[in-house]
Amino acid sequence: MSRVLVTGGSGFVGRPVLAALAALGYEVHAVARRPPPGGAGEGVRWHVADLLDSGARAAVTAGIEATHLVHLAWYAEPGRYWTAVENAHWVAATLGLLEAFAAGGGRRAVLAGSCAEYDWTHGRLAEASTPLAPATLYGVSKDATRRVAEGLAERLGLSLAWARIFFLYGPREHPQRLVASVARALVRGERAATTEGSQVRDFLHVDDVAGAFAAVAASDVTGAVNVGSGEGVAVRDLVRALARAAGAEDRLAVGAKPSRAGEPPELVADARRLRDEVGFRPAYTLEAGLAQTVAWWRRAEAP
Amino acid sequence: MSRVLVTGGSGFVGRPVLAALAALGYEVHAVARRPPPGGAGEGVRWHVADLLDSGARAAVTAGIEATHLVHLAWYAEPGRYWTAVENAHWVAATLGLLEAFAAGGGRRAVLAGSCAEYDWTHGRLAEASTPLAPATLYGVSKDATRRVAEGLAERLGLSLAWARIFFLYGPREHPQRLVASVARALVRGERAATTEGSQVRDFLHVDDVAGAFAAVAASDVTGAVNVGSGEGVAVRDLVRALARAAGAEDRLAVGAKPSRAGEPPELVADARRLRDEVGFRPAYTLEAGLAQTVAWWRRAEAP
Repeated sequence: MSRVLVTGGSGFVGRPVLAALAALGYEVHAVARRPPPGGAGEGVRWHVADLLDSGARAAVTAGIEATHLVHLAWYAEPGRYWTAVENAHWVAATLGLLEAFAAGGGRRAVLAGSCAEYDWTHGRLAEASTPLAPATLYGVSKDATRRVAEGLAERLGLSLAWARIFFLYGPREHPQRLVASVARALVRGERAATTEGSQVRDFLHVDDVAGAFAAVAASDVTGAVNVGSGEGVAVRDLVRALARAAGAEDRLAVGAKPSRAGEPPELVADARRLRDEVGFRPAYTLEAGLAQTVAWWRRAEAP
Repeated sequence: MSRVLVTGGSGFVGRPVLAALAALGYEVHAVARRPPPGGAGEGVRWHVADLLDSGARAAVTAGIEATHLVHLAWYAEPGRYWTAVENAHWVAATLGLLEAFAAGGGRRAVLAGSCAEYDWTHGRLAEASTPLAPATLYGVSKDATRRVAEGLAERLGLSLAWARIFFLYGPREHPQRLVASVARALVRGERAATTEGSQVRDFLHVDDVAGAFAAVAASDVTGAVNVGSGEGVAVRDLVRALARAAGAEDRLAVGAKPSRAGEPPELVADARRLRDEVGFRPAYTLEAGLAQTVAWWRRAEAP
């Protein structure tokens, strides 16, 4: 039986990743600084460890002896993570984790990358052809990690995939992020103000992001793989669809907030590698995903 | 007074760097796992620390409170360093050191990079125009370190230069390396066999490499700077000049060893940035540098 170690397992992407891997038959081990308060899914074994500590990394990987690794943990505080010094800590921790995983008998690793590694003057972002030119310390750190991790994996005899996450939404998203903030306001009966939102983005439901990670882990695809829908949607159309799903179009004020300077007009994944080589297809349409998300926020915000 | 912390201070480049910085008036602090057996220069303060250990890094930098950092330490075992897993350890250690240096009040850092970061299908390697495409884990790790270090330095308010070392020679070089192995054999009265050596390289005497590092540290030049002579020499012409300096041309057998496959025909630094922006000029001609090196090996090998 294959045994997978998931880092960041208590996070927004991590929780559905645990479920998706369990559904594929993996024995699932999750590492987090703290296990999630409400528990997290049947049959997941939780390990408490600070992955920034090299001794803790060595101990936890030696104890689990996983065959597979899905590494999601990183510094992700909204508003701060783009420029935070903590990005450098996670470069080091990720390389250390990869080595510790190999030492424990690991064979296959999937590490979370980001669309922020690409040159954002390009609109359609493809693994094999779009230049890498990250504009933030976060993007630079993810990109640098991949470069070293790929060479290190070769040296350690590991199979390694680098899954670049695009834009996402879904249950348990941080309330400061776009879809969560709008959905939450609307289900509370409040007004939701957004920017003009002409920029086109690739949004994927977090359960599909999780399904894609599990599918990549179970595949033998190596190198960079975009985890996106392959379809662009203008942010204003996304929030309008969200307001429709909430039955609250009258309370959505598109354009009421000033746009951020320098937003690239289009950022959409070329998702052919994920579809054709990994064989993954999203389960949610955007409409269905937004409806599910609104329903979740309605329950979460219920008195 | 400016206080400089030098890592790798007991190494081939490090020892003359200590002297070059002292000559510029710095209060010089050297960190090494072990201080060099013969001591190392007047007035250098030695600190024993393993820079791969985060606690040791924090303690040593907090104790010194240097204004300047010259970071040379890396895994450098000849024959092994190109592909060694240890490269990843030094990525992490370098980023951690930079942060610890900033926390101790540091202002200006010079980190050692390598010509191995460049795309070696190009012959003249220039900071601003030659693509980066390292072919080894060593080169990848150096390159990735620079990418993150530059972003991190900006965030930490540090001025940072990245000095790319080319080919070098001089006293105390590891006896397995080209100039040292030939010089040593010839001064012992032995025969020295080399490859055909048609490839052109940029060789700089280690004292000039050290002088360049000190000059870069004292300048306000930021980003990548090649540390090379700017002049190419065919390896066979280099070893012939070395044999002439040793008065042993009859014992040099050029072409007696098989050439390594895939050696790039030319690797020469564009050294204009070092000369024009940093204002550094090498003290040694190639002939004078080789003569000095032969004389050093003669003393070292004397019975």
